[in-house]
Amino acid sequence: MESTLPTSPSYTSSFELLIDERQGRLAKLLGEITATGARVKGLDVEESTSGRIKVHLNCDMINSSHREEVIAVLQNHRGVEMTNISDATFLAHRGGKIQIQAKYPIRNRDDLSRAYTPGVARVCQHIHKNPSRASSLTMKSNSVAVVTDGTAVLGLGDIGPAAALPVMEGKAVLFKQFGNVDAIPIALDAHEVDDIVAHIKAIAPGFGGINLEDISAPRCFEIEDRLRAELDIPVFHDDQHGTAIVALAGLTNALKVVGKKIENVRIVVSGVGAAGSAIIKLLLSQGASDIIAFGRSGPLIRTQTEGMHESRRWLAEHTNKKLFDGTLVEAIKDADVFIGVSTGGLLKNEDVAQMKNDAIVFALANPTPEIDPIFAAQHVGVVATGRSDFPNQINNVLAFPGLFRGILDAKISEITVELLRITALAIASVIDESELTPHYIIPGIFDQRVAGAVSRAVRKAVAAKERNAS
Amino acid sequence: MESTLPTSPSYTSSFELLIDERQGRLAKLLGEITATGARVKGLDVEESTSGRIKVHLNCDMINSSHREEVIAVLQNHRGVEMTNISDATFLAHRGGKIQIQAKYPIRNRDDLSRAYTPGVARVCQHIHKNPSRASSLTMKSNSVAVVTDGTAVLGLGDIGPAAALPVMEGKAVLFKQFGNVDAIPIALDAHEVDDIVAHIKAIAPGFGGINLEDISAPRCFEIEDRLRAELDIPVFHDDQHGTAIVALAGLTNALKVVGKKIENVRIVVSGVGAAGSAIIKLLLSQGASDIIAFGRSGPLIRTQTEGMHESRRWLAEHTNKKLFDGTLVEAIKDADVFIGVSTGGLLKNEDVAQMKNDAIVFALANPTPEIDPIFAAQHVGVVATGRSDFPNQINNVLAFPGLFRGILDAKISEITVELLRITALAIASVIDESELTPHYIIPGIFDQRVAGAVSRAVRKAVAAKERNAS
Repeated sequence: MESTLPTSPSYTSSFELLIDERQGRLAKLLGEITATGARVKGLDVEESTSGRIKVHLNCDMINSSHREEVIAVLQNHRGVEMTNISDATFLAHRGGKIQIQAKYPIRNRDDLSRAYTPGVARVCQHIHKNPSRASSLTMKSNSVAVVTDGTAVLGLGDIGPAAALPVMEGKAVLFKQFGNVDAIPIALDAHEVDDIVAHIKAIAPGFGGINLEDISAPRCFEIEDRLRAELDIPVFHDDQHGTAIVALAGLTNALKVVGKKIENVRIVVSGVGAAGSAIIKLLLSQGASDIIAFGRSGPLIRTQTEGMHESRRWLAEHTNKKLFDGTLVEAIKDADVFIGVSTGGLLKNEDVAQMKNDAIVFALANPTPEIDPIFAAQHVGVVATGRSDFPNQINNVLAFPGLFRGILDAKISEITVELLRITALAIASVIDESELTPHYIIPGIFDQRVAGAVSRAVRKAVAAKERNAS
Repeated sequence: MESTLPTSPSYTSSFELLIDERQGRLAKLLGEITATGARVKGLDVEESTSGRIKVHLNCDMINSSHREEVIAVLQNHRGVEMTNISDATFLAHRGGKIQIQAKYPIRNRDDLSRAYTPGVARVCQHIHKNPSRASSLTMKSNSVAVVTDGTAVLGLGDIGPAAALPVMEGKAVLFKQFGNVDAIPIALDAHEVDDIVAHIKAIAPGFGGINLEDISAPRCFEIEDRLRAELDIPVFHDDQHGTAIVALAGLTNALKVVGKKIENVRIVVSGVGAAGSAIIKLLLSQGASDIIAFGRSGPLIRTQTEGMHESRRWLAEHTNKKLFDGTLVEAIKDADVFIGVSTGGLLKNEDVAQMKNDAIVFALANPTPEIDPIFAAQHVGVVATGRSDFPNQINNVLAFPGLFRGILDAKISEITVELLRITALAIASVIDESELTPHYIIPGIFDQRVAGAVSRAVRKAVAAKERNAS
C-alpha cells in the first residue's frame, strides 16, 4: 500500500482482462486496485461472450513495485483472467521515437534528377569548390549530433551507448519540437577521451553543431575543450551548460523576488561535477563574487589543490576567497543561496531553516532533491528543483532548443560564456517582472515563448557583435 | 547552338526579367531562347508598371555551358533587364533534403514523462539488462547509416565528405520513400582504412545496418570485409552490391528474352573496380562459368597475378578459365554478354556488331556508356545502360530500399551472397515472363511493386532458413 505517493503517467499500463460477469465483481476489483494507490484512468468493455466480458483497464501507477502489486491483485482475483499487459512507456518506444523525413518527396523523374542524379552532381561540385556552402545546401544547415558514450545517463550511471539511445532520441524529439532543429543521436561505443574526440571530429562534416550528452566527468571537460579547439562548429555539453543556463535564469528571477543582487549574495554550491562546475562559471560571469563550492570531501580551497583535476583546481582558484574550511551545514548558515547538484537528501530540514532571511534553495538532485522542497518552501524565500511535480522546475529543455536554433540561424561557430549568459537572461525575461512570485521564477517547459526568446537574443547578440566589429 | 542534345530537368532555371513592353519584344526573346535549344516550360507575368512587365521565365536547359548561353541572350537583349536567376536544382538543396521527425509529438507532461524523463529511465535500464532489445525499442530498429568518406562520389572522384553530403541525403530520401527505412548520412572526415573502420564501429550502436557509399576501391573492399567481420549488424556497399544485384536482375530477364542460359554464355566484363568485382562474384554465384574480366591494362589471367591486390587476384583465379590473353575487342567477338562498368565510349560501333547472335550489352558507364546504346540496340538482342533516358536503366535504387526493408524486418545480421542473389531474382520477377521484351527487362525505378517484392523475398528466405535450421 503506497497510496501516499503520487501515481505517474510514466507508469501507465493497460491490462486486458476477461471477467466472469457476476454482480459486483468488476466494482470490487476496481475498489481493490484503487486501494493500492493506483489511479484508474479508463475502462473499456470491448466484447461480451457467454457470460464473460473483455475489459481494457488503463491505470497510472506509482513505480515498478507498485505495478507488480497491481498485477498481483488482478492475477489473484477470482473470476478474472489477465490476457495481456501493455506498458505505455514501452509502447511509446517501440521502433524508436524518431524518423527521417524527406523535405520534398521525389514524385517523378524531374524531382529525382534534381534531388539525386544527375543534378546532385552540380551541387556536390559547387560545395567542393566552395566548402562553406555546405552549411546552406546540406543537412549541416540545421543538424546537431547528440553524442553520448553512455557513461553518465540520467541517474543510471555507465549503462553503455545502446541503452543511452532512448534518452538521446527523446532529446532529438525535444530539439525538433521546441527549436525545429534536426538532432541526430550518435551513441558511441568508445571509452578513451582520444578516441571519442577522434570519432566526433570524423563525423563532424555533416553537422552544424555537437551536443555532448551524458558523458561522465571529468572526461566530459577534456572532450569538450578539445573539440572546441579542434572543430569549426559549436560544441555544447548540455549536462554542464544547459543546466547552468537554466539555473542562472531561475536565480536571476529568484533574486528579484527576494530583492537581492547577485554581486552581494553568498552562494553555496554542492556538487562540482559537470553541472556544478558550469553553474559556478556562469554565476561568476554574471557577477557573483562569493561562492563556496563543495565536493564530496568538503569545500574547494585554493590552498589545498594538490592532486586535483585541472577543472576542479580552476574552481578552487576562483571561489571561496575567505578560504572557508568547515562543513556544508556550517556553510549554509550564512548563505543567501544554496544550489545543489549532488545527492538526494543531503541536508536536514533544520539546516535549511538556519539560512539567511529570504534565502533561495535550488535543490536540483533528481529524482530526490538535496532537501525536502515542501519543507524548505516554508522556511526560505524561493525553492526550485529538478522535479516536474513541484513549482520552479530547472529543466534543460528551456535552453538547448532555442540556443541551437539561434546558433544555426546566425551560423555561429563557437559558444562563448557570454552567449550562455545571454541565453539565461533571455529565458528569465520571458516572465515579466510584475508576474514574478516565489512559485513562478522560471517559465514552464511548454511555454511557447521561450525558444523564440532565446533564439532572438542569440541572433541579436551576434548581429550587435558584427556591427561593433565592422 | 546545342539543340541536338536533350534538355534536362536538372538544369531548370527561373529567370526574373523586367521587359520594356514593345510589340513583339517578348515573342522575339522567346524565339531566341528556344533557338539555343532551351525548352521554355512556363512564363508568368507578375506585374506591369509604367510600360515594363515583370516576367518569370522557367526553362529547362541542356548543361552548364548552355545555361551560360541562355543567360547571355537574356543579358544582351535590348529592353530586357535580368533581375534574378534561380536554379531549381540548387533550390531543392537549400537547407538540406532531409529532416528529423518525432514519431509522436510531446504534447503534455504525460507524453514527456513517457518519451523522456522520468519514464525513459526504465527503458534505458531494460536495454542495459537486455542488450538485444535495443533493436526494437530504439532507432536501431529502423535505421541505416549511409557512410562515405567522399573519395569516389558519382563520377566526380575524391571531392571530400562535405561535398558528398548531397548524394548521401538524396540516398536517404530514396531509402525512406521506397523502403520506409530511416537512413542517416554520415560523412567521414577520415582517409585511412583503419580510421574509417574504427569510426564506423564506434557509431554502430545506434544503427540497424551500415550502407557504405562512394568509397574508392580498393579501400572499400577492405573496409567492408573488416566491418562484416567485426560488427554484428549487416554491412552493404551499394556501389558494389547494389549495382551487382540490379545487373543480375536485368541479365536474368535479358537471357530469357534471347533464350540463353547463364551457364552457357560467355560474359565479358569491362571494369574490375567496386561494381565490376561485385557483378562478377554475383554472376558466378548464379551459375555463370565463362567470364573474362578486363581491367585497364587487359584481361585478368590467373597466371599473371603478381603484385595484384588481393581482391583482384580472387577475380583472376575465378574467371578466364581458358587464359584468354587478347584485347577487349577480340574478346567480345565471341561473347554473348558484354557488361561495362568502366569508361564511356570504350568500344566502337563495329566492335559490338561482331558479337554473337542475340548478344546482350549492358553499357553502364555514366553519363556516357561504353558504347552508343542507340547503335548497339540495332545490332544486338538487348541493351541496358545506367541512363534514365534510354530503356532498361540499371539503377541501384531498385535494390537497396527493399533489401534493407527486408533485412530490418527479419533482423538479419549478415548479408550473404545468397541474399544478394535472392534480391536480384526478386527484382527480375516483378516483370512477368509474358511481358518481357528487349526494351523491358527491368522494372522502372518508380515501379511500386519492386521494394515490396524484394523485402518479401528476403523475409521469406530468412524464414525458410530458420525452418531448416530448427
